[in-house]
Amino acid sequence: MDDRLIPVRPPRRNRKRLQTPNPEVRQRLMAATAELIRDGDYAALRIEDIAERAGLSVGTFYLYFDGKADLFVNLVQEYTLLLRERMNAASAGAADVAESLMRGFDAYLDFVLENERAFLHFVRASGTLATNAGLLSTWAFNAHAADMLPGVKAAIDQGVARKANPTLVAQAIIGLTQHMVVYWLEHKDICTRDELKAFVNGFIAFGLATATPQSS
Amino acid sequence: MDDRLIPVRPPRRNRKRLQTPNPEVRQRLMAATAELIRDGDYAALRIEDIAERAGLSVGTFYLYFDGKADLFVNLVQEYTLLLRERMNAASAGAADVAESLMRGFDAYLDFVLENERAFLHFVRASGTLATNAGLLSTWAFNAHAADMLPGVKAAIDQGVARKANPTLVAQAIIGLTQHMVVYWLEHKDICTRDELKAFVNGFIAFGLATATPQSS
Repeated sequence: MDDRLIPVRPPRRNRKRLQTPNPEVRQRLMAATAELIRDGDYAALRIEDIAERAGLSVGTFYLYFDGKADLFVNLVQEYTLLLRERMNAASAGAADVAESLMRGFDAYLDFVLENERAFLHFVRASGTLATNAGLLSTWAFNAHAADMLPGVKAAIDQGVARKANPTLVAQAIIGLTQHMVVYWLEHKDICTRDELKAFVNGFIAFGLATATPQSS
Repeated sequence: MDDRLIPVRPPRRNRKRLQTPNPEVRQRLMAATAELIRDGDYAALRIEDIAERAGLSVGTFYLYFDGKADLFVNLVQEYTLLLRERMNAASAGAADVAESLMRGFDAYLDFVLENERAFLHFVRASGTLATNAGLLSTWAFNAHAADMLPGVKAAIDQGVARKANPTLVAQAIIGLTQHMVVYWLEHKDICTRDELKAFVNGFIAFGLATATPQSS
């Protein structure tokens, strides 16, 4: 368990708790939801559909989750953890922060394209979901920023990146990247994946540059 | 009427239409909603509350709007138009694209701070609202990008900004700015308004620079 992943959950109602929850049952409900999102519309999804796909009863569903919002928060946490693991694995061993960002961006885009419909839904809906750690979107951005912070600090200390508040830098990279990827998914005719990657990485590399910008 | 503002609306249900709608009544309903959002929680807002604040009946409300989603889309359009007018007015007559961005950012931040609660709600909820021009968030980003495009194109043509797809550049500036402002509103202790402005403008100025970044 990654200790930087803050566990979050939506405000709980007073439901019956299981003394010994079965992780496999919980996972079946999450997997069923992920499948249904891949094929259709999350907003129209009913608890009945999820239980049926998982081969479980609606009563069992409610022993594990408070409802759709609770399930949604748990799913976003699972996706975020997976994505962060893949980005961290891709970035490991990079020669410098620029290479680390390039590799991280590729891993991010691979993950997003594999889970395109779920990703877009999560990004859009997570700004409206309250958790015990603030909005779900805020939690997810901060989790990614925490992963990025050591590399950003090192780059600033080594003089590779311009002196700036490292938390602002991490947020800027994440905010810019997510916006551009969502924009690209909605307007794929604007450029190729490689062109998007070159643009985002260039914007960030220049954005962090130590040299004063000047016309050539 | 600004012809660059694409009129959007959520999918309509089959309601009774007024032959001669009264713009003043419509405006009263919008103003009442804006007041209620400033004081409280949009999610908990009921049509009854809006009608009561406006001194009108619920029946009258439904002659003008299909429901909360329709009203919300209309409000976001009105706020977006106001914000764009203020940003365009602030940027007018700037000596170059850098000054234009600095002034635009100040106007943006003034507007956001005046309408903080409504702004945060609009940003978060607009990703979940379908309109006849795509998601409301996509529409709003594209409207701001359209305003920015001529300046970005000129900066690239004049060699002040690096060669890149101007639409991607405009989206990058808008996405980065919105993310950093939302982050700052949620974490105001991280830096002052002036520090935020310097950071965002610096990131963009370097991000667009023509020079190759190099360690100093």
